[in-house]
Amino acid sequence: MIAAIGERFPGRAELIVGIGDDAAVVRAADGRVVATTDMLIEGRHFRREWSSARDIGGKAAARNLADIAAMGASPTALLVSFAGPGTLEVAWVLELAEGIAEESAAAGASVAGGDTSSADLVMLAVTALGDLGGRAPVTRRGARPGDVVALAGALGRAAAGLALLSAGLTAPGTGLEYLIRAHQRPDPPYDAGPQAASLGATSMIDISDGLIADLGHVAAGSEVRMEVESALLTAEPVVRPGSLARAAALLGGIDWLPWVLAGGDDHALAATFPPGTALPGRWTIIGKVSRGDGVLVDGRRWNDAGGWDHFRT
Amino acid sequence: MIAAIGERFPGRAELIVGIGDDAAVVRAADGRVVATTDMLIEGRHFRREWSSARDIGGKAAARNLADIAAMGASPTALLVSFAGPGTLEVAWVLELAEGIAEESAAAGASVAGGDTSSADLVMLAVTALGDLGGRAPVTRRGARPGDVVALAGALGRAAAGLALLSAGLTAPGTGLEYLIRAHQRPDPPYDAGPQAASLGATSMIDISDGLIADLGHVAAGSEVRMEVESALLTAEPVVRPGSLARAAALLGGIDWLPWVLAGGDDHALAATFPPGTALPGRWTIIGKVSRGDGVLVDGRRWNDAGGWDHFRT
Repeated sequence: MIAAIGERFPGRAELIVGIGDDAAVVRAADGRVVATTDMLIEGRHFRREWSSARDIGGKAAARNLADIAAMGASPTALLVSFAGPGTLEVAWVLELAEGIAEESAAAGASVAGGDTSSADLVMLAVTALGDLGGRAPVTRRGARPGDVVALAGALGRAAAGLALLSAGLTAPGTGLEYLIRAHQRPDPPYDAGPQAASLGATSMIDISDGLIADLGHVAAGSEVRMEVESALLTAEPVVRPGSLARAAALLGGIDWLPWVLAGGDDHALAATFPPGTALPGRWTIIGKVSRGDGVLVDGRRWNDAGGWDHFRT
Repeated sequence: MIAAIGERFPGRAELIVGIGDDAAVVRAADGRVVATTDMLIEGRHFRREWSSARDIGGKAAARNLADIAAMGASPTALLVSFAGPGTLEVAWVLELAEGIAEESAAAGASVAGGDTSSADLVMLAVTALGDLGGRAPVTRRGARPGDVVALAGALGRAAAGLALLSAGLTAPGTGLEYLIRAHQRPDPPYDAGPQAASLGATSMIDISDGLIADLGHVAAGSEVRMEVESALLTAEPVVRPGSLARAAALLGGIDWLPWVLAGGDDHALAATFPPGTALPGRWTIIGKVSRGDGVLVDGRRWNDAGGWDHFRT
């Protein structure tokens, strides 16, 4: 099975030693390597009844590849540890490997190595490596008052899709299938990361915990306040307001703004740029950086309970 | 808790961006990076009743750091994904972090990042990175007929310790405590890896599945036969025959040779060198490479069932 998995992971030029030795050797021409890791556990991060093996593999890869992009780096390689029950079908595991390989290729990286073991649940631990191409890493610590806050990629889709799935609504024929698809398989704007670095981004983050939470990490890291304007945030191209409203209506007329402000898993990139930076069309300005702390939306704080807090601005 | 864990992971010079951003940035001065990963799952790879948190962390780190050394590289950084039940005591998790930090420091590496999530069992996924310092990677594919086979580090100890623990024998006062210790916490000869590379090693492997199995990987990768002499293998410094015999006697007089030939988890390094290479004292010659395939011990094959196979040499 390991050989069959290996066949699904063609090596690229970055791979000096690939699968099958004690360790892989990956080119790091820059003299630095960017590295990130996380774990996906069945029942906590995905459900086999809601997502195909291909999508689970793709998602596991995408989460880590997006973190590499968020440093301003280009992904070069993935390492994958996989554990699962002995009763798992070989075809399922191979499809998982294909999902990982696809997403990896989409980001320009190759699968360099990994490990398999048995466990009662399916578990995936993915490590992604990346190359900065001579650029400085873009961290969470460099945002400055006066910078603009901009976003590449979509918000609120994965959260809306998860809400639909949780309610048993698979949305066929509604035109909302893309929301469910966004939950099953994120589509991070990988090359926007190195692009932002080249444009002089002062800070950047992958939106995986929700916009407010993740901008909060940048605000804390940079010791600034992030001020977002909802009118910039809740229009295309960041969201398609009409379809989020329709999904919310299907769910009994709930408020769709929390999906946009607090929904994770879309893996958009948020970055700050010096004022006046000429931004390509894929980057949408959604606000600005000011002195202070925390994150404001239209001058108000969004609290952890998912509502507005009028008393703590 | 993440902040408290972070305090246990002091950064070293190799770390350009450490814990707390989307990804770490690690120096890779060589222009290549060596990378390996694996997963440890409670009940399969360790038991909380048999090993302390410190030892589990140390072992998880050691397994991966040894794989870096086995490529001829010096470990630079670790990334650690951790999952565990919410009922786990914070002190236990911090001790685990200390074990990881200790082993990492012993190998010259720093903890660069990671991820935590919740799960019913304790799970650790560790990725290690390393630097080749300008040397060629030492793979499993370069052994040549005529080379000598040499070993750095010990064999059979961890397997003997596991056998004692499995029988409920903790061995206090017998002088065999070091066997149990070897199971709980391997002590890989990290710097022997880069040393072997500098000495011109033609192949190298970390002994984690057992000597015969791992030499078999080199034999297959290099398309050669590995011939081991038991008299070289079952004497000091590779093993302490007296204490292995005493442990075997405690267990009812079983044969201790399988611990040496098939026991994993000691993380010794086996390497092949061109004939006539002047080897430092830590490297013990245990055999030679010849034309053919597989692994022979005193001219015989050791089979998967743990016995000699007289018919397949």
